[in-house]
Amino acid sequence: MRHSAGILCVVALAVSPILTAASAADKDVIDYREHIMNTLNEQAGALGEILSNAIPDDNVIAHLDAIALTASTALKAFEPKVPGGEAKPEVWQNWADFSKRMNEFAQKTAEMAKTAHQQGKDAALSEVLDALSCKSCHDTYRKEKKKQQ
Amino acid sequence: MRHSAGILCVVALAVSPILTAASAADKDVIDYREHIMNTLNEQAGALGEILSNAIPDDNVIAHLDAIALTASTALKAFEPKVPGGEAKPEVWQNWADFSKRMNEFAQKTAEMAKTAHQQGKDAALSEVLDALSCKSCHDTYRKEKKKQQ
Repeated sequence: MRHSAGILCVVALAVSPILTAASAADKDVIDYREHIMNTLNEQAGALGEILSNAIPDDNVIAHLDAIALTASTALKAFEPKVPGGEAKPEVWQNWADFSKRMNEFAQKTAEMAKTAHQQGKDAALSEVLDALSCKSCHDTYRKEKKKQQ
Repeated sequence: MRHSAGILCVVALAVSPILTAASAADKDVIDYREHIMNTLNEQAGALGEILSNAIPDDNVIAHLDAIALTASTALKAFEPKVPGGEAKPEVWQNWADFSKRMNEFAQKTAEMAKTAHQQGKDAALSEVLDALSCKSCHDTYRKEKKKQQ
């Protein structure tokens, strides 16, 4: 037994740097997708202030473009199957549904941005509620948000 | 004195809804510019993970575009002279310098994004350190960031 324990210790010591490297890589993957989802949250917040007339709409087309651009990057950030952060395991368990929704989100926000450039911001704003229907996805695929100070 | 106090109370009651409305409007202004600066922070974080090879570079041009777009919206968000949040009063005390730096930031990030589209991502990445020299401005114009959980 003592001998076995000794072997286990050696194995553990040898494996631990690999595990640590894997864990750091997982953290990078989680951080990266949270940077993207937080960007969407911040841009949706800015847009919401404009829609509620709290802030003038000078920047509105740039916000729509930033949302469309960021939406186009989001699915790629979830491709590595690394549960953690605010993502529920259902993201990968129901990948067909999740990726379909993410692609639709990217497509609708791209159309909204295109409308803004071709027909003006007022026409685009009528598409916002449909394009940014974040809640239905979050209810299924996101854990309750961590409290922030 | 009793009479004067009574008048002050009436005045205070009459003024308080106006003050509350002004305070809510100030909060909107501060929230809006923080949405924009937080977007830059999140996108710079995502880009940083790609630059350090922690994450593949599939999305890199979209990140450069999102940073350039958001940089183009930032100065407008500081135009209302509403101190608060993480902005130091120096933003408005030294407006000529602050706005010059913000315009340079918008210009350099736009050039970086243009380089990405015209010459490819590797050429653009060589411009990142110069374009995203956030720290020099933050040292002068931003209060120490609030701790987040």
